[in-house]
Amino acid sequence: MKPVAERAVIIGAGLIGSSLGAAAKAAGAFRHVVGVGRDARNLAVALERACVDSVSQDPLSAVVKADLVILATPVDTAVELLPSLAAVARGTTIFTDVGSVKQPIVRAARQCGIEARFVGGHPIAGGTAVGATACDPGMFRDRTVVLTPGPGTSPEASARVRILWEATGARIIETTAERHDEALALTSHLPQFLAYALCVAAERGGDLTDRFFGAGFRDTTRLAASDHDLWIAVARLNAGPLLKVMDAFGEVWGELRAAVAAGDEAALRRILRQASAGKDRSER
Amino acid sequence: MKPVAERAVIIGAGLIGSSLGAAAKAAGAFRHVVGVGRDARNLAVALERACVDSVSQDPLSAVVKADLVILATPVDTAVELLPSLAAVARGTTIFTDVGSVKQPIVRAARQCGIEARFVGGHPIAGGTAVGATACDPGMFRDRTVVLTPGPGTSPEASARVRILWEATGARIIETTAERHDEALALTSHLPQFLAYALCVAAERGGDLTDRFFGAGFRDTTRLAASDHDLWIAVARLNAGPLLKVMDAFGEVWGELRAAVAAGDEAALRRILRQASAGKDRSER
Repeated sequence: MKPVAERAVIIGAGLIGSSLGAAAKAAGAFRHVVGVGRDARNLAVALERACVDSVSQDPLSAVVKADLVILATPVDTAVELLPSLAAVARGTTIFTDVGSVKQPIVRAARQCGIEARFVGGHPIAGGTAVGATACDPGMFRDRTVVLTPGPGTSPEASARVRILWEATGARIIETTAERHDEALALTSHLPQFLAYALCVAAERGGDLTDRFFGAGFRDTTRLAASDHDLWIAVARLNAGPLLKVMDAFGEVWGELRAAVAAGDEAALRRILRQASAGKDRSER
Repeated sequence: MKPVAERAVIIGAGLIGSSLGAAAKAAGAFRHVVGVGRDARNLAVALERACVDSVSQDPLSAVVKADLVILATPVDTAVELLPSLAAVARGTTIFTDVGSVKQPIVRAARQCGIEARFVGGHPIAGGTAVGATACDPGMFRDRTVVLTPGPGTSPEASARVRILWEATGARIIETTAERHDEALALTSHLPQFLAYALCVAAERGGDLTDRFFGAGFRDTTRLAASDHDLWIAVARLNAGPLLKVMDAFGEVWGELRAAVAAGDEAALRRILRQASAGKDRSER
């Protein structure tokens, strides 16, 4: 393929950043890609695994000559870093990110005057493994990547970022940052916090529960093994939509409790039928 | 091995019943085992897959000469069937079951005068597949099987049922029916109803969520694909312990909501640390 960037810089060589580097390099999407991170050992792994062509511990100097910058840090770090990166980059450099909350970074891009060159992105992929050792160039194949170009985003910037993700084998959805954040609060952030809450309930149950856990509990709480910092940041940055879906869930939970308490089989059956419709919806 | 039973009868040739038959037959635990069910086609599959030696659609006539009867029907059906089966069986026949709630069946056994010969059992294994076509003789290997002999259960009955399950490769835990039902409410029934409730919330979210589901949602809600009848019965038969853990969960959910609403990072971090401890506990 014709390279999307002569010199791309990926800020953050974690699971997503290193996998994106590996996938894009394998597809020939970059002439040269720099991996930026703080952990020298992890950067060495990213280099060795061909996730990037060179590495740097200094984001500012790395982006000076870049024509594409991909923020692949935790979402709060990306929001903090963007202004200083935008200040030192060329006036034509395109910026994108991979964060799981989109409104704060889109707002930050607008505030530092790079709205036309910023395309919010969010690959719905990943895992609980961390660092470049877990990198997987096939991670995005047939996965959904949400792009959230704003009204001020240039068509060229949108197209470049779209071509990059298409090169990784991902399916692209374009929507607004608002809609993304509301939808993901329900499909991703809510399950995440439910998994945490279920584990808290199990912990408080104490010795009673030991040796009685099965595959059902473990699958339902798989997400609870995720990094705390990341999800504390999501809770802060997407608090509004998250609270809304937490309350919606609380309402369902109250209905379910009332049906169990009343032994109301018809009500239970109605709720479970609605659950099956939701499950089907999620598998489509 | 020396057979545990000359003539065993498994009532219910579903996933668990047929898999137990296959595992026990493979281990030589039965001289002859009869599979009882209503669905002739499913019984034919159970026979063809060597889950049982013969089949019958009539539970009463099947148990007349049995020395071991295993109730592998849904838990409410087992409670309903037990008195009539006990009435026609020999006075020495040992009964056991595989239901996920133990107090109602233990109570039923006491009420029909077979307490000495009844050993409650619950393999913490299974899946969402149904019927003998999904049978797996390795299903119980290294899985936990909980046995709940009561104060009146004879040591010989306990030993026979234990040997049967050991022959399938399972690890045995003995506890009381009360303790089983409280623990499983937390480790199994709570995740089940959380999965249902999350799917209901997703369904009510409607079109907003379509195409935004990822592996996280799907794993968290894997249990929601389970059979409704089974779980409606569990909700009825284990309502007390279930309501208790639903309320315990509601309390955690309230704390989490308050922390998100207040942007209280320290509180969130405390809750997530407790979640990690619970997750570790479930993996032990």
